[in-house]
Amino acid sequence: MDIRKIKETCLYVTDLEQTKEFYTGKLGFELIGEVPGRHVFFRAGASVLLCFISEVAKEGKTLPPHFGSGNLHLAFEVAKSDYQPWKDKVEAAGIAVEQEYDWGGGFLSFYFRDPDEHLLELVMEGMWERGG
Amino acid sequence: MDIRKIKETCLYVTDLEQTKEFYTGKLGFELIGEVPGRHVFFRAGASVLLCFISEVAKEGKTLPPHFGSGNLHLAFEVAKSDYQPWKDKVEAAGIAVEQEYDWGGGFLSFYFRDPDEHLLELVMEGMWERGG
Repeated sequence: MDIRKIKETCLYVTDLEQTKEFYTGKLGFELIGEVPGRHVFFRAGASVLLCFISEVAKEGKTLPPHFGSGNLHLAFEVAKSDYQPWKDKVEAAGIAVEQEYDWGGGFLSFYFRDPDEHLLELVMEGMWERGG
Repeated sequence: MDIRKIKETCLYVTDLEQTKEFYTGKLGFELIGEVPGRHVFFRAGASVLLCFISEVAKEGKTLPPHFGSGNLHLAFEVAKSDYQPWKDKVEAAGIAVEQEYDWGGGFLSFYFRDPDEHLLELVMEGMWERGG
């Protein structure tokens, strides 16, 4: 009776077109849902990334209300062998790598920002499953 | 070169002890990291849930700054056969189920709140992978 994973992670954004241009146009995520003025949803591997206009999600007309502000944080996971190619891809898309961090044991991650200044991170698979 | 999944999802909380009592004490998540006054981290299946004190994360002393407020949203995924047992477990822990929703095709989800009023959802595995 274990949780499989966190399936949906939600960000709050100000401009859905800008968000699509970033996550689909620059990062290459598949757009899997869209309601103009309300939200855009993307597939991120086995997870989904929900991007809502906060004031609209807060109305909670059909589903319970939620909302948020700030520069939220999430981390995408890639195979170790895909880490450097992904870093190259992010930089080639003109996105600044804000910081890279060495977590030990050969595990690196790097940080970058989406158009709403949410803090995105790319981590290597296995980093959270190390012993000790 | 695909993203595997969203590995880390982050919430901002006001009281780390209260957060531990909820996610570990009530939901049974394993505590995998803790820095008093700064954060508590939990394993949520293949994902990790990061809970930060927003004002501390915002300082960004070692890693880039992030922060947030509001009633954020995320969804945990369980096997279809574990859905009802999980709903029973949540209710038995004295947590109110705010809403249950039928997404069609036999896929249900229910919503509840953590102590900071973040909107948590439990979804059945496969809901986002349906055809059409």
